[in-house]
Amino acid sequence: MAIITLTTDFGEKDHFVGAVKGAIYTEMEDAKIVDISHSISPFHLHEAAYIIQNAYKSFPPGSIHVIGVDSELNPENKHIAVLMDGHYFVCADNGIISMLTSEIRPEKIVEINIHDRVISNFPVLDVFVKVAGHIARGGTLEVIGKTITEIKELTGIRPVVNNKESQIIGNVIYIDNYGNVISNISKKLFETVGKGREFIINARSEKFSRIHTHYSDAINFEQPPEKREEDGKRLALWNSSQFLELAIYKSNPTSVGGASSLFGLEFRDTITVNFNS
Amino acid sequence: MAIITLTTDFGEKDHFVGAVKGAIYTEMEDAKIVDISHSISPFHLHEAAYIIQNAYKSFPPGSIHVIGVDSELNPENKHIAVLMDGHYFVCADNGIISMLTSEIRPEKIVEINIHDRVISNFPVLDVFVKVAGHIARGGTLEVIGKTITEIKELTGIRPVVNNKESQIIGNVIYIDNYGNVISNISKKLFETVGKGREFIINARSEKFSRIHTHYSDAINFEQPPEKREEDGKRLALWNSSQFLELAIYKSNPTSVGGASSLFGLEFRDTITVNFNS
Amino acid sequence: MAIITLTTDFGEKDHFVGAVKGAIYTEMEDAKIVDISHSISPFHLHEAAYIIQNAYKSFPPGSIHVIGVDSELNPENKHIAVLMDGHYFVCADNGIISMLTSEIRPEKIVEINIHDRVISNFPVLDVFVKVAGHIARGGTLEVIGKTITEIKELTGIRPVVNNKESQIIGNVIYIDNYGNVISNISKKLFETVGKGREFIINARSEKFSRIHTHYSDAINFEQPPEKREEDGKRLALWNSSQFLELAIYKSNPTSVGGASSLFGLEFRDTITVNFNS
Repeated sequence: MAIITLTTDFGEKDHFVGAVKGAIYTEMEDAKIVDISHSISPFHLHEAAYIIQNAYKSFPPGSIHVIGVDSELNPENKHIAVLMDGHYFVCADNGIISMLTSEIRPEKIVEINIHDRVISNFPVLDVFVKVAGHIARGGTLEVIGKTITEIKELTGIRPVVNNKESQIIGNVIYIDNYGNVISNISKKLFETVGKGREFIINARSEKFSRIHTHYSDAINFEQPPEKREEDGKRLALWNSSQFLELAIYKSNPTSVGGASSLFGLEFRDTITVNFNS
Repeated sequence: MAIITLTTDFGEKDHFVGAVKGAIYTEMEDAKIVDISHSISPFHLHEAAYIIQNAYKSFPPGSIHVIGVDSELNPENKHIAVLMDGHYFVCADNGIISMLTSEIRPEKIVEINIHDRVISNFPVLDVFVKVAGHIARGGTLEVIGKTITEIKELTGIRPVVNNKESQIIGNVIYIDNYGNVISNISKKLFETVGKGREFIINARSEKFSRIHTHYSDAINFEQPPEKREEDGKRLALWNSSQFLELAIYKSNPTSVGGASSLFGLEFRDTITVNFNS
Repeated sequence: MAIITLTTDFGEKDHFVGAVKGAIYTEMEDAKIVDISHSISPFHLHEAAYIIQNAYKSFPPGSIHVIGVDSELNPENKHIAVLMDGHYFVCADNGIISMLTSEIRPEKIVEINIHDRVISNFPVLDVFVKVAGHIARGGTLEVIGKTITEIKELTGIRPVVNNKESQIIGNVIYIDNYGNVISNISKKLFETVGKGREFIINARSEKFSRIHTHYSDAINFEQPPEKREEDGKRLALWNSSQFLELAIYKSNPTSVGGASSLFGLEFRDTITVNFNS
């Protein structure tokens, strides 16, 4: 019984998602359809990549991940199906696969070539569902496309390390539902460069000299309630995806504001780590 | 295994949708429940009709579509179950069925009469789920209602053709997630009236003389990148539902704006096609 | 086949919900996952309690309800699994269980103690899914936790009755998708205190002397259309959860405004019932 996930910028209101699900059930009565997100900002490949990269690994190997962001077929936007890390991805060759991981290479990539049999201006519905159905029934990628070795490379926004290895210059790659600010500085990169040295993180006028592992580390539970907030509830931590995140404990961005609004940090803004020499 | 779709104005936050799904699983352990949309604007029958009409056809015949918009029982709002186009619809007799299609007539309509057995002020939960369960188990409509031949007619907003057949006056019927503007002018009507003549589409101060078939037709891929946008990325096209749509290629309504905000077009606004004589 | 419901403040956009669903399917291939809500305001236990209490009873007994609101493990926020009213709840011991009902006592409560086997800073994904899987496979709560008898009590916002039993002072506990205002005054409390006496409901400058049972009671269908609105479409009614609700018939909070904005009532505001002596 195949699992098919959907990640799109279709929104929650329009008929697009419902129509795609109907087409999946028409093609595969027993499919398990899982929404990852339909609220990607329109055409925002960075957001889509961040969300998929942090969701797909939880699914069983063999799951089929349909990505409906910037998927219209045109001379510079082919349709591809990819086997990578034991998972299938069906999407456009718009760079999103290259942003999912810089470490894992696809095992197999095909350029989908069933378009002569499918007339469409709704490719997720018409093309991607057919491809997902083929894979779900155990078909090989070669039947629905021709093997290719190159896909479009979009490196996303990558952190930069200076020559002396005293500094990492990263960027904000995502603001989450709590207003917390996620950077592209991974724990792995941080430890490789930092080698245990002390450091200061700078983000606009905010400074942090420790990186925690839980949001509640902002609170010192050994103190009485009125003295517990050591740093105004602000903290830096390694989030569940192991990226450096700047957060405010129990923030509500729609009322008092979250880290993003309170620190004045937006997508692509700079976050710098300076290590002591 | 029955497919039951839900289209409501309940929103994504409240308990209504969850409660209805619980009731469905209590009634039918094996149901496949599919959300079409819960973000219909409150009581907005036109929106609901547009979304359902473009989603239901993708589902397998025999699917049961529950519509929870303006569904409270009152002397002028009976509950009905309808078999049409091979699909079942369970909803209030508020005109929505008549707006789904002007071309297909219902094969069977019953006025639901199980209310003496069900006390309710949450009809989708109490009444519609019971009816859906009955249909899913293969029951006939006559068991849960009495056959009627007339339902409330709401013609929606229909385009008007002038006597000389030189002009179609249509209206905006929907603004989608990308801010694109969808009219009620169908490709079929356009071709019947236009008979291949040249034309100008007017919508406020915007004019279009071609109708494309893909969003990326706004781009001329044979030109170098800096010269590709032929018309500022604006275009008219036949959308995937075969309605005339005014769009901006890769627009993001939350940042730079979509066709709706940039063209100044809202629900019910006029879009006119003038054919050359 | 276990039903697992999810109620969280994760939002609709981020990867959190998708990741949790993937983990559930990895743990239990046959699970039925049902979203109750992912749009709880961040860390808002009152909202979460209101939504779960009105949704869970529709589900079949034995359903497992995972609550991902304020669920990070810390010295004052243990993880618990609870059997109550025939349903299982997996959540943090932050008071939410005590707010679900003041009338039904839990049959069994355990403090989850599998954390030594699970390293996590995403407890819903790592801990709650494991616990849900254990319960779904028929395991007993004692295997994944140690029995406790006390949980954190948060009484929520409770209505107050004066000594003379002439007055109930309640509060707004929720604003729904239609802008309608839900109070914590239950029909049961109202009838116990009021004993059939006449009454006036006061909420800011609004007054109501009747409580209806249907929204369309705001309309007198025996009158011609232009004379039907007896009270400007405003009404007080017992909602489907049997709480006193102040509503506007067919309101749309995004256009003309709902009861909340028109009456100027927000979360925690006072609603008073004065009974005649």
